[in-house]
Amino acid sequence: MSQDLKEAALEYHAKPRPGKLSVEITKPTQTSRDLSLAYSPGVAEPVREIAKDPENAYKYTGKGNLVAVITDGTAILGLGNLGPLASKPVMEGKGVLFKRFAGIDVFDIEVNSESPQAFIETVERIADTFGGINLEDIKAPECFEIERALIEKCNVPVFHDDQHGTAIVTAAGMINALELQGKKIEDATVVCLGAGAAAIACMKLLISCGMRSENIFMLDRKGVIHSGRDDLNQYKAMFANDTDKRTLDDAIDGADVFVGLSGPDLLSADQLKKMAPNPVVFACSNPDPEISPAVALAARDDLIMATGRSDYPNQVNNVLGFPFIFRGALDVRATAINEEMKVAAVNAIRELAKEPVPQEICAAYNVDSLEFGKEYIIPKPMDVRLLDVVPAAVARAAVDSGVARLPYPAHYPLKSMDDII
Amino acid sequence: MSQDLKEAALEYHAKPRPGKLSVEITKPTQTSRDLSLAYSPGVAEPVREIAKDPENAYKYTGKGNLVAVITDGTAILGLGNLGPLASKPVMEGKGVLFKRFAGIDVFDIEVNSESPQAFIETVERIADTFGGINLEDIKAPECFEIERALIEKCNVPVFHDDQHGTAIVTAAGMINALELQGKKIEDATVVCLGAGAAAIACMKLLISCGMRSENIFMLDRKGVIHSGRDDLNQYKAMFANDTDKRTLDDAIDGADVFVGLSGPDLLSADQLKKMAPNPVVFACSNPDPEISPAVALAARDDLIMATGRSDYPNQVNNVLGFPFIFRGALDVRATAINEEMKVAAVNAIRELAKEPVPQEICAAYNVDSLEFGKEYIIPKPMDVRLLDVVPAAVARAAVDSGVARLPYPAHYPLKSMDDII
Repeated sequence: MSQDLKEAALEYHAKPRPGKLSVEITKPTQTSRDLSLAYSPGVAEPVREIAKDPENAYKYTGKGNLVAVITDGTAILGLGNLGPLASKPVMEGKGVLFKRFAGIDVFDIEVNSESPQAFIETVERIADTFGGINLEDIKAPECFEIERALIEKCNVPVFHDDQHGTAIVTAAGMINALELQGKKIEDATVVCLGAGAAAIACMKLLISCGMRSENIFMLDRKGVIHSGRDDLNQYKAMFANDTDKRTLDDAIDGADVFVGLSGPDLLSADQLKKMAPNPVVFACSNPDPEISPAVALAARDDLIMATGRSDYPNQVNNVLGFPFIFRGALDVRATAINEEMKVAAVNAIRELAKEPVPQEICAAYNVDSLEFGKEYIIPKPMDVRLLDVVPAAVARAAVDSGVARLPYPAHYPLKSMDDII
Repeated sequence: MSQDLKEAALEYHAKPRPGKLSVEITKPTQTSRDLSLAYSPGVAEPVREIAKDPENAYKYTGKGNLVAVITDGTAILGLGNLGPLASKPVMEGKGVLFKRFAGIDVFDIEVNSESPQAFIETVERIADTFGGINLEDIKAPECFEIERALIEKCNVPVFHDDQHGTAIVTAAGMINALELQGKKIEDATVVCLGAGAAAIACMKLLISCGMRSENIFMLDRKGVIHSGRDDLNQYKAMFANDTDKRTLDDAIDGADVFVGLSGPDLLSADQLKKMAPNPVVFACSNPDPEISPAVALAARDDLIMATGRSDYPNQVNNVLGFPFIFRGALDVRATAINEEMKVAAVNAIRELAKEPVPQEICAAYNVDSLEFGKEYIIPKPMDVRLLDVVPAAVARAAVDSGVARLPYPAHYPLKSMDDII
């Protein structure tokens, strides 16, 4: 990050008032009469209605549009375990994105917990406050256990964005990239460098989309995950193939796809050159990718490349997913965000990339045009049409898969932020 | 509550969108550059600064202006234990008042806890998220233990408004009323009907203000609390006098002051007539007082009467206290809201009642004038001068008593909401 950007970021967060969010009143509060409705004695009436039927909380409070962004601060961005308080700017930033892209209110909650069990208990006890729960920046493997337990215990959808948001956007781009390279997903051989929460979720969702687990070679810090290793947790063990490959060099030889969710500069130009013709490289380590686009494109010109960065084509950015996925889930009062909803989001995002791009969106990125192809495999974050297509697809999938408690919304698809109820 | 008010309250809470609060973005988010400051990669910089020094959370996040309004739903208004979810309209309403009167952001948190210990653990774990904690609608005697434990465990001020907010506003009105009636606080004999959280806190704060505990006769459902009873918890036991009085009839005879924090119509006109000359009656059961002002004033014309209702003179309303007390505490980054700060709030509120009232404030209440006297012993909730005097008094007391981590603010006293930083 440049010194200029660092200083601008500190200034942005500090001035004119600290932070990025405020809580605002949405109803009249000028007169005594107004206040007697907002608080005592009028407020007793919605209280009684909710005591009669808990569903009335969605009618008389902000619960139905309110998502908790909750962390224990154990895996903040790429910075590691800096504790819950240091994560607050990130959690508030997530709140900014939820609001900016899908009109969702967010309370960020930083949990100072001594164990995954304590974290689970805490979130479970406060869960009724919210319409949905977005887990954030929790390290693996604890995040898997935490997510599993909370999905079971909470009545509202629980979604770990670092896993599933990343997986959804990665899968959307990957399917389009394979199509452009003339490769079938079920035949593609994949090297996944990294075996953390995002990597495991990405590979699981790609398998849901047709990829074959025997074609996936996942590597952690010790090398290829294979069936001869006895040091694997249950989550990594799902990806243990019976193979002789041991190193990245072994695995990359002839591979169709590289997915990096690891660290900077871990893939060399020589390794890239060993991949099959027309490869797909997703180097998603942030801010510094596993191989820089400049190095990669100098090494070979038949590849499709994506990164996590906004200053190169094909940015894999979770913001294409989570705001719209929660929007759809909240609007049908889904009890979960299930596999069907995730796959629906993947398909909605990847199909949008094939549509002609309106001039306003091109203008926001200072380009004359954006056309489906090697340098445009997924939509841009500022593409307002995401609000149109993703919530609708997710809501439809929720209804069809039986986790929706409301019918498909009459006001869908959403044409603009003003359509949000 | 009239049918009309009930329907208006439900409509107010439901339309056009459910609830009364939203979370809004306070910084620019239009361009990609904006988003790179609000979230990745720029957000890493404030994260690093907070990891270096936790105090930087106040500089780069909303923590310093953020109060949690937290409940377990065990004592919602006068409605009882209806569970955490049903309390949400009240907690959101409290958020409305914090914002409306003192510009403070509130996250309402409803905790579904199986025990006081579970509640304490939960609040302790999420406390770092906030700059202060306002406990709300938690039943006695559990609320005492909960508050004590959280004050000890949390680094931010913890305040149970049902106790201390009520006590502060009651004491402010009481001291003024006694002065108007020509009675000395240290000589006044008091009947306190009710022995819940608010009653106990009120009597304790009045003792801090000069009242003598041997002059206080507190009654619970079983009658006068006296030293011969063996059924008292430790909180009630502090008020057990060695007395022959057993009933309200016994206690009220010749009393100077009646404080009701109990239920409707528990004080009769005959009992009122037995009080000493020039009595003070605070009948604060809400919405229906222990004796209605109409009945009381028909029975005798030498009394000063206050209630919890906005449609009679002398409304004892917590909103005169909590927004401004937290404003002052947050602005000097106080580690606690201690007795000195509470007494400072009492004095600021009661002294304001003696000041000439500007025409705008009278107009808001449709009266020609308001003048310190029997029908105006405490300021009105819409009195904007509360923002001027109460935070300043509380902040000064915090600094003088050594619980402030910042000096007395240079921008104090606050002349309007625009002055809030």
